[in-house]
Amino acid sequence: MSNIDYSAEANRLETLPALETFKWIFEQTDDAWISFSGAEDVVLIDLALQVNPNVKVFSLDTGRLHPETYEFIEQVRKHYDIEIELLSPDAEKLQTLVKEKGLFSFYEDGHQECCGIRKVQPLRKKLGSIGAWITGQRRDQSLDTRAEVPLVQYDKAFSTEEHSLFKANPLANWTSEEVWGYIRANEIPYNKLHEQGYISIGCQPCTRPVLPNQHERGGRWWWEEATEKECGLHAIPVKTVSA
Amino acid sequence: MSNIDYSAEANRLETLPALETFKWIFEQTDDAWISFSGAEDVVLIDLALQVNPNVKVFSLDTGRLHPETYEFIEQVRKHYDIEIELLSPDAEKLQTLVKEKGLFSFYEDGHQECCGIRKVQPLRKKLGSIGAWITGQRRDQSLDTRAEVPLVQYDKAFSTEEHSLFKANPLANWTSEEVWGYIRANEIPYNKLHEQGYISIGCQPCTRPVLPNQHERGGRWWWEEATEKECGLHAIPVKTVSA
Amino acid sequence: MSNIDYSAEANRLETLPALETFKWIFEQTDDAWISFSGAEDVVLIDLALQVNPNVKVFSLDTGRLHPETYEFIEQVRKHYDIEIELLSPDAEKLQTLVKEKGLFSFYEDGHQECCGIRKVQPLRKKLGSIGAWITGQRRDQSLDTRAEVPLVQYDKAFSTEEHSLFKANPLANWTSEEVWGYIRANEIPYNKLHEQGYISIGCQPCTRPVLPNQHERGGRWWWEEATEKECGLHAIPVKTVSA
Amino acid sequence: MSNIDYSAEANRLETLPALETFKWIFEQTDDAWISFSGAEDVVLIDLALQVNPNVKVFSLDTGRLHPETYEFIEQVRKHYDIEIELLSPDAEKLQTLVKEKGLFSFYEDGHQECCGIRKVQPLRKKLGSIGAWITGQRRDQSLDTRAEVPLVQYDKAFSTEEHSLFKANPLANWTSEEVWGYIRANEIPYNKLHEQGYISIGCQPCTRPVLPNQHERGGRWWWEEATEKECGLHAIPVKTVSA
Repeated sequence: MSNIDYSAEANRLETLPALETFKWIFEQTDDAWISFSGAEDVVLIDLALQVNPNVKVFSLDTGRLHPETYEFIEQVRKHYDIEIELLSPDAEKLQTLVKEKGLFSFYEDGHQECCGIRKVQPLRKKLGSIGAWITGQRRDQSLDTRAEVPLVQYDKAFSTEEHSLFKANPLANWTSEEVWGYIRANEIPYNKLHEQGYISIGCQPCTRPVLPNQHERGGRWWWEEATEKECGLHAIPVKTVSA
Repeated sequence: MSNIDYSAEANRLETLPALETFKWIFEQTDDAWISFSGAEDVVLIDLALQVNPNVKVFSLDTGRLHPETYEFIEQVRKHYDIEIELLSPDAEKLQTLVKEKGLFSFYEDGHQECCGIRKVQPLRKKLGSIGAWITGQRRDQSLDTRAEVPLVQYDKAFSTEEHSLFKANPLANWTSEEVWGYIRANEIPYNKLHEQGYISIGCQPCTRPVLPNQHERGGRWWWEEATEKECGLHAIPVKTVSA
Repeated sequence: MSNIDYSAEANRLETLPALETFKWIFEQTDDAWISFSGAEDVVLIDLALQVNPNVKVFSLDTGRLHPETYEFIEQVRKHYDIEIELLSPDAEKLQTLVKEKGLFSFYEDGHQECCGIRKVQPLRKKLGSIGAWITGQRRDQSLDTRAEVPLVQYDKAFSTEEHSLFKANPLANWTSEEVWGYIRANEIPYNKLHEQGYISIGCQPCTRPVLPNQHERGGRWWWEEATEKECGLHAIPVKTVSA
Repeated sequence: MSNIDYSAEANRLETLPALETFKWIFEQTDDAWISFSGAEDVVLIDLALQVNPNVKVFSLDTGRLHPETYEFIEQVRKHYDIEIELLSPDAEKLQTLVKEKGLFSFYEDGHQECCGIRKVQPLRKKLGSIGAWITGQRRDQSLDTRAEVPLVQYDKAFSTEEHSLFKANPLANWTSEEVWGYIRANEIPYNKLHEQGYISIGCQPCTRPVLPNQHERGGRWWWEEATEKECGLHAIPVKTVSA
């Protein structure tokens, strides 16, 4: 994969239907995994299965998800008859953090430390052994941090000298309206929290419903600045690099 | 009021700030009442008080509102230090309907009969003795039934030979985004249901939360056709008439 | 009915099965009505139907019941295929109270005024035209106010010179354990609030769940003294009188 | 500790106040830990602190607790200004189970496997290095499995040839009424789930509220037989042994 010009591919795919992005992904590697958050990115699974019956899916089970999210992950597993690998945080690291700072330290000194243990480390471990990951990131999710998300990109944040991988964001140019139009039109299962005012869904203590017409990112880490509202899964490269 | 050209006034006010509509209303009559639904039309009260400290407000207490709506009506009463008149349905008529058809007949034969007793009759009685009513109707609430709502209009539906009144819809040309922007910017109290996925709010059994990006009217009388999603408060005149 | 020695009958029935009380009631009058609160007194309906297929039932629809209670009343109506008459408060009296004091005056100056309009007056009107009423009162519901409830009694509180009636409390000597044992054993429908920590159920703003092992009356009018925790339906006679 | 006659001590302590059990525990070992479930066994912490300011506390964070339970554990940590060690399950074992059977396998083939990974293994690891553990088990919690719980006992289930420990159940002879009387009288913080009909509280998918007068164990693993309603923390010895 090292010779791919991701920028050029991203530009080319930009005007094609989303299924073309999926086809392209699976042509590059047979070890591409969907990173499923338990929210409206279920559309990724629905689309991927149309071009690849052997879709690989993982989710980050932080241990603090909503009961509704666990139920939804199970519902998706059964609905599509797929395996979903749940990545759990390291027990020792969790215990050390929680013993020292309690279960809600993120409200006091920021979500980065907790996300680091519950999300980023299990993800990093997983990404170290696979060819690509597929995310539900969209440009309309955040003007501050996601406005430039490309359809496909070399993953500068998680590639290492020994292991390189790429990242695909096949819904990058979809709007929230389009995602939800797809879900309703195709009667895809959705997280029941979406019937209670939730749009973006993460961990239970760090997610809340939003008011009508409030931006979905207002429901995440609301006690922090907008520019920091990323959990570290989607690190922003200082400069654009294609390897 | 009989010589007013409402269409012309509506056109004139269309390009002016909403406060001008309120000023115009109170110039026409000192007996204009805000019809407050217990939802985001609280903006009407907030605006009206800026030009008239003696705002008159009524609400239709159907006897089936959400607990959260009763709490919100009380909160508004105290926040603005105003009286809110609650109009209750006639006890005998209610008992007759419920004894015959039970408490949820609207799911079976439509909401018109129940709305007729719980909303329209108390409203009609009230409107029969006042000069004008002010509603929170907006054009963006329904392409089917509200797309043409004017800022002010002669009330053809509720005027009688003995008594004529006009109706003002000062938010007719506001969007949902603007209403919610106003509420958040001015930190106006809002119904707690809006934190649970509800946008449009009516009676408890006939209101439900909507999904992200679903139109607010999808949360009202969802078992009926879109064109019938009016409770009868806002009857649509067959042809536009100015009296 | 004027020559009945209710005390003697109450004593006699005390040692007999509850169905005997129902039989006795329907022997005295063919116009006995069950006053159904929408809670565990559904057992009254279940028992009465075993000896009288034409059971008459009314409920007080105060306009402030929980949505779950309205749903339960409807469920009971359909489950037993019976009519349930819902008594609504007088619209004018309600409007006067609420306009002056708002929707939650009971938290400030006691529940008697609101209960008077929403419960006692509609009840008094109903009782003025019937032969007897049947309630779910039990002695174990309140050591302060219900410890002496007899199985049957002349209704001193609601009889008038022109009209006398009696009151039956066929569950007076049942315990909460027995009522709930009956409900579970017979798979009778129950109010969903009972799955959320509620035991005694009245109006929504005046009812709350109780903690484990907390007395059920702790969930009613908790801001008032225990001795005043009656809504006026079950007035305590100054002295025992049998007419 | 090997020469203690636990049966004799249990008998002696049976008639003494609960604080005497705590005193006895801390005389035997300075490494006794309270196993706090996040429910009404908070009483253990309240009592222990009265005789030992350096109370040691752990909880099993299964990763599937209710949000309210995480909030309560944090509330207890701050209220008493104590450290609470949270024991997390092994990430690899969890992933293997969930990948194969999904997130709700306990509903299909019993809770033992899931409890084994999420509760028993982390507990066993912890117990392997401490002198004693203190639990909130009470005899009235289950006629089937807890009727014989002694105040103190050699822990036959978790002691090994290399490491022996004892187990104390200082509330064994308390009733639910007494525990809740203590909580209310002393205004101790409690899990908010107790305001929603929950009595016994475990993992979210395996706990539900109970009806009025329903035994608390009816809210745990309700799809299984009563005699199996233990998670494995409190294994029942085949015969009573004192080491």
